Amino acid sequence: MSALTHIGATGEAHMVDVSAKTETSRVALARGQVVMARETLRLAIEGQAKKGDVFGVARVAGIMAAKKTSDLLPLCHPLPLSSISVEITADESLPGLRVLAEASVTGRTGVEMEALTAVAIACLTIYDMLKAADRGMRIEGVELVEKRGGKSGDWRRAE
Amino acid sequence: MSALTHIGATGEAHMVDVSAKTETSRVALARGQVVMARETLRLAIEGQAKKGDVFGVARVAGIMAAKKTSDLLPLCHPLPLSSISVEITADESLPGLRVLAEASVTGRTGVEMEALTAVAIACLTIYDMLKAADRGMRIEGVELVEKRGGKSGDWRRAE
Amino acid sequence: MSALTHIGATGEAHMVDVSAKTETSRVALARGQVVMARETLRLAIEGQAKKGDVFGVARVAGIMAAKKTSDLLPLCHPLPLSSISVEITADESLPGLRVLAEASVTGRTGVEMEALTAVAIACLTIYDMLKAADRGMRIEGVELVEKRGGKSGDWRRAE
Amino acid sequence: MSALTHIGATGEAHMVDVSAKTETSRVALARGQVVMARETLRLAIEGQAKKGDVFGVARVAGIMAAKKTSDLLPLCHPLPLSSISVEITADESLPGLRVLAEASVTGRTGVEMEALTAVAIACLTIYDMLKAADRGMRIEGVELVEKRGGKSGDWRRAE
Amino acid sequence: MSALTHIGATGEAHMVDVSAKTETSRVALARGQVVMARETLRLAIEGQAKKGDVFGVARVAGIMAAKKTSDLLPLCHPLPLSSISVEITADESLPGLRVLAEASVTGRTGVEMEALTAVAIACLTIYDMLKAADRGMRIEGVELVEKRGGKSGDWRRAE
Amino acid sequence: MSALTHIGATGEAHMVDVSAKTETSRVALARGQVVMARETLRLAIEGQAKKGDVFGVARVAGIMAAKKTSDLLPLCHPLPLSSISVEITADESLPGLRVLAEASVTGRTGVEMEALTAVAIACLTIYDMLKAADRGMRIEGVELVEKRGGKSGDWRRAE
Repeated sequence: MSALTHIGATGEAHMVDVSAKTETSRVALARGQVVMARETLRLAIEGQAKKGDVFGVARVAGIMAAKKTSDLLPLCHPLPLSSISVEITADESLPGLRVLAEASVTGRTGVEMEALTAVAIACLTIYDMLKAADRGMRIEGVELVEKRGGKSGDWRRAE
Repeated sequence: MSALTHIGATGEAHMVDVSAKTETSRVALARGQVVMARETLRLAIEGQAKKGDVFGVARVAGIMAAKKTSDLLPLCHPLPLSSISVEITADESLPGLRVLAEASVTGRTGVEMEALTAVAIACLTIYDMLKAADRGMRIEGVELVEKRGGKSGDWRRAE
Repeated sequence: MSALTHIGATGEAHMVDVSAKTETSRVALARGQVVMARETLRLAIEGQAKKGDVFGVARVAGIMAAKKTSDLLPLCHPLPLSSISVEITADESLPGLRVLAEASVTGRTGVEMEALTAVAIACLTIYDMLKAADRGMRIEGVELVEKRGGKSGDWRRAE
Repeated sequence: MSALTHIGATGEAHMVDVSAKTETSRVALARGQVVMARETLRLAIEGQAKKGDVFGVARVAGIMAAKKTSDLLPLCHPLPLSSISVEITADESLPGLRVLAEASVTGRTGVEMEALTAVAIACLTIYDMLKAADRGMRIEGVELVEKRGGKSGDWRRAE
Repeated sequence: MSALTHIGATGEAHMVDVSAKTETSRVALARGQVVMARETLRLAIEGQAKKGDVFGVARVAGIMAAKKTSDLLPLCHPLPLSSISVEITADESLPGLRVLAEASVTGRTGVEMEALTAVAIACLTIYDMLKAADRGMRIEGVELVEKRGGKSGDWRRAE
Repeated sequence: MSALTHIGATGEAHMVDVSAKTETSRVALARGQVVMARETLRLAIEGQAKKGDVFGVARVAGIMAAKKTSDLLPLCHPLPLSSISVEITADESLPGLRVLAEASVTGRTGVEMEALTAVAIACLTIYDMLKAADRGMRIEGVELVEKRGGKSGDWRRAE
């Protein structure tokens, strides 16, 4: 079905039409990290953060945020996520916490933004829960690691 | 399509992957009740509640809440509801109001949580609209009555 | 699959069941306008509105609102929009701004409400951004122009 | 407290700073109407609309939307509404339904947008509930009637 | 400041005007429980639920829901919560899980609905996370335990 | 007013009680950047991105996200933002786009998370709008630059 008008044809912001795309299985994996002082990481690991269990709360925050992606990013299509998982691990070498998120869907658009949004909000939640101890924390390296499915095919970040 | 990682494999909170499930018709029926003083029930029935028509407002609140289910329950999948209905009836024998909600979808996951969320929020709305008269009200018996469709098959509460 | 109950059969508010409908391509086009003082229109065109670029912000607001349609309208079905575009043009003859929105979906229900919601919220955003200069602005002629697809077929507003 | 930067000084979109304003009582009254075929108005009045009670549902939709105003309009400040009421009346002379909304707050910004948003969403809900009978309905005359309080003082639409 | 109209004077649904109330400290405590099979409780306690840590996820869900109360209950005022805590404990005698929530605010309206909403959504989350094992669970006894502050004074449930 | 219980006393996740804090003026400034290929930056600068004007849309997305902060971060208090501004500038030396956000409030809690959330979502929006050209983009250096006001006093990142 052709569009009724030519709205959006002139380069102005619009949500691109995906109705001609076929529904396929799509997966995306994204990651990021929160770099912090060594003592702050200690608080998180030992469960001594003032606001509670950093790992558990940030994981839930990331999962819930993934479901709000199209509500947060203006030109992102709404889609019925098939799955979303968030993993948070301590890394003494940073020092800090590493966040990994994987999203999947059977749909007409990819889930890269859902995975990246889960990572970003999990990182912000980590910051929020530990900021009473350390305002100097920094969110780094929020990026796509890999995606599969869709017309543009598979993609994997070069090491 | 296999997952890219094994996130979520260790028992941590995650939204389970439903991409391998087939889309089928699913229906769920849930119920609950708000037990109150006899005079409070009278106010509701006679439309004398301070905040307005309890039946009409609670019904709309339940319907709208069903559409927010995946936004409220962290590990619940978003799904495009096909229908949602909420019925509220007075029961002098409680005394109180009974809420019944039915939801349906053509999708990969069930709609039990949507029906239960509609019931719970309708009950909270009833409480909110009548609380100026009676803070002692109590929400009771919020439960699934029946569900049909999906891999786990039909289920009906034993009487 | 037949419903479990007869909830909603008595004329009370409910979200009608669309599970028996087939998924088809649907498009809707809606429009509206904000009538204002000539000097207010000038402010908008010249980018002198106190709150910033009226055209750009109202366009994004309309797009984002379209995705919230089922959250705003109680009996409206959630649906995965395929596209949404909003166009805003100045019309000295009103004087004022004209808003045009087009939405599309592959789904069981139409997208008329999504297109109309985009128009209405874009118009309210225009009002919000210019109200410091002109509280007398008026939103007029918010209406459906055309729709295609679905069981009820095509429809076009008579000129 | 002076701002840390000059962000927003160059005319780009931003939410204007209201921290220097004092909290005062503010009220706003807005109105609008949905013009429809005479038979459609009849359906609404007689409670025969396919989706249920138009007056009751549209009233609740308007009230709930007023609380979402700052979520819908990008540059609108969040504020804790003190009250919001929506009134819907049939007018055979249009023919159609008239919507009136009044909002109040004790705050640093006005509630014009909350009253207008309530009117606009109530009108869209009316359209949604009656559109199966009449796609040609039109939302007209959404405008501010009066506002009181705040630095800019009282304002009343000239008749 | 008197209202501009008499909207809401006729008993129709409206958000009651609280602008004349003074801001005071208010606290509310609510509780509820999810009754389940003994083996299901065992799964929750041992962290063997298919969807992950029931206690941690339900606690976060309750906290987040408390902040959405005015978005869920049509006539509930938005308010800036000062605190919200949710506690979940296993009770073999039910058998099941007990939920307790406490909310506080410095504001013009009470926080009973925030505490009750936290309890209700935590209960629904518990149901969602364990339903693969036990669809027969039942939410019981959602009620206010105590409230302090506000014009209506302190209230405590009679034992 | 003392709390009714000792919920949250055991280190479990909870929203800390701020009712004893006084309302003061608070400001926070945060920043971040999206590093991309030189040709991708060119697309953004020249307005050739497939989805439209990157600068304008990302700015609005950041502003709107700041207002959703307490909805995204589980233990973050809701607060009535006084202002929020987002600035996006191209930096050929990255190459990429730099995002700066400033938030202010008169309240009981700080606005660091609001400023950081605006930055993070503006960065994600930039990624979304340019990802068709470059999936390898990376969000870097999301951090607090400065904050003023509140009990913990002023803070400024050491250079």
